[in-house]
Amino acid sequence: MWTAKVLGVGAVALALSVDVTVRLIRRLRSRGTLKEVLFFPSEIACVEHIFRPALPHSCVCSLPHGVETSFSRLLRHILSAASTLDLCVFAFSNVNLSRAVLTLHKRGVTVRVLSDKDYTAISGSQIGLLRSAGICVRCDKSSVYMHHKFAVVDGRRLITGSLNWTLTAVQSNLENVIVTEERDLVRPFVDEFHRLWVCNDPERRCVTVKA
Amino acid sequence: MWTAKVLGVGAVALALSVDVTVRLIRRLRSRGTLKEVLFFPSEIACVEHIFRPALPHSCVCSLPHGVETSFSRLLRHILSAASTLDLCVFAFSNVNLSRAVLTLHKRGVTVRVLSDKDYTAISGSQIGLLRSAGICVRCDKSSVYMHHKFAVVDGRRLITGSLNWTLTAVQSNLENVIVTEERDLVRPFVDEFHRLWVCNDPERRCVTVKA
Repeated sequence: MWTAKVLGVGAVALALSVDVTVRLIRRLRSRGTLKEVLFFPSEIACVEHIFRPALPHSCVCSLPHGVETSFSRLLRHILSAASTLDLCVFAFSNVNLSRAVLTLHKRGVTVRVLSDKDYTAISGSQIGLLRSAGICVRCDKSSVYMHHKFAVVDGRRLITGSLNWTLTAVQSNLENVIVTEERDLVRPFVDEFHRLWVCNDPERRCVTVKA
Repeated sequence: MWTAKVLGVGAVALALSVDVTVRLIRRLRSRGTLKEVLFFPSEIACVEHIFRPALPHSCVCSLPHGVETSFSRLLRHILSAASTLDLCVFAFSNVNLSRAVLTLHKRGVTVRVLSDKDYTAISGSQIGLLRSAGICVRCDKSSVYMHHKFAVVDGRRLITGSLNWTLTAVQSNLENVIVTEERDLVRPFVDEFHRLWVCNDPERRCVTVKA
């Protein structure tokens, strides 16, 4: 009789502990799934410490230091890339965002940039600089606006919203950026980037297929 | 001894069934959390059946009928509003999107529209029409662009992306829209709308606080 009781209690304890463990893993997983919203304009602050974390107090510029802003968060997310950065952006003239992309390229991260051909040619565009540095850049060949403003970091972190990669967008406009690792949201952007990248291969004739 | 065995087996069965039920509820909940990505340009198709679902074959226009497109999905999400629609959009000139907003207003849905003051005045803007219909519209008073393009349906469904509410954006440009009910993503937009709405109250002096 005692054997049966012990077996019964043991089985219940086992079932409950499995349940608790599963719940705990799920909660940790859910917490770990990045979902962040950034609003702009961002407070203006020095971002030198983000580019040089080993020398956090090296900058003596007149801007506020050590302040975490929407823009510093955005830079950190971009600079978190360890293997790839796929960038699909309408207008790209922000010098600090360009510096972040160049930093990744120098680190050996595979960077691909897709931009709108009209905005690539405007004064202040950083696209030429990226291309000169050896980054693979393609421009949308169609006559319509390539109006996306998204980036995919390491194939799993999506950065998207209303924000063009310009100084005005970051420091003046009312804008939003979502940063997420939700797979159901990231996957379509990964696929869309691939589709547009192939479609805008300069050595390939490609009919733009509507989404 | 048999009593103990039965009790033990019963307890195990109870624990397992609770576990299975919890898992099932979670799976259903997870499935129920809307996460959808729409890409544009949208295929051009008749959307009359979305506005008049009771008469799905009433339209005889020359456009393709019965086709589900990114635009028809967007319209369905907007028209799903049962109590409120908070809209914060830079440029709004799309006649069908305007019709959707007016339809909601006629249904008794509380609609609030916040737009950029410069773009409100351009030819083709639907903002004046919405205001004439009795919808509460506020325009961003600052000298910078109110560049958001988001809507919150019933306080829980977020529609956001690169897409302005114009015909060009829907039918020509490369654009994206995320539709989600993920609370961690929706809540900041609800708060931001509230902040901007209060800030742009015409009867209130308000200093724009940077995000």
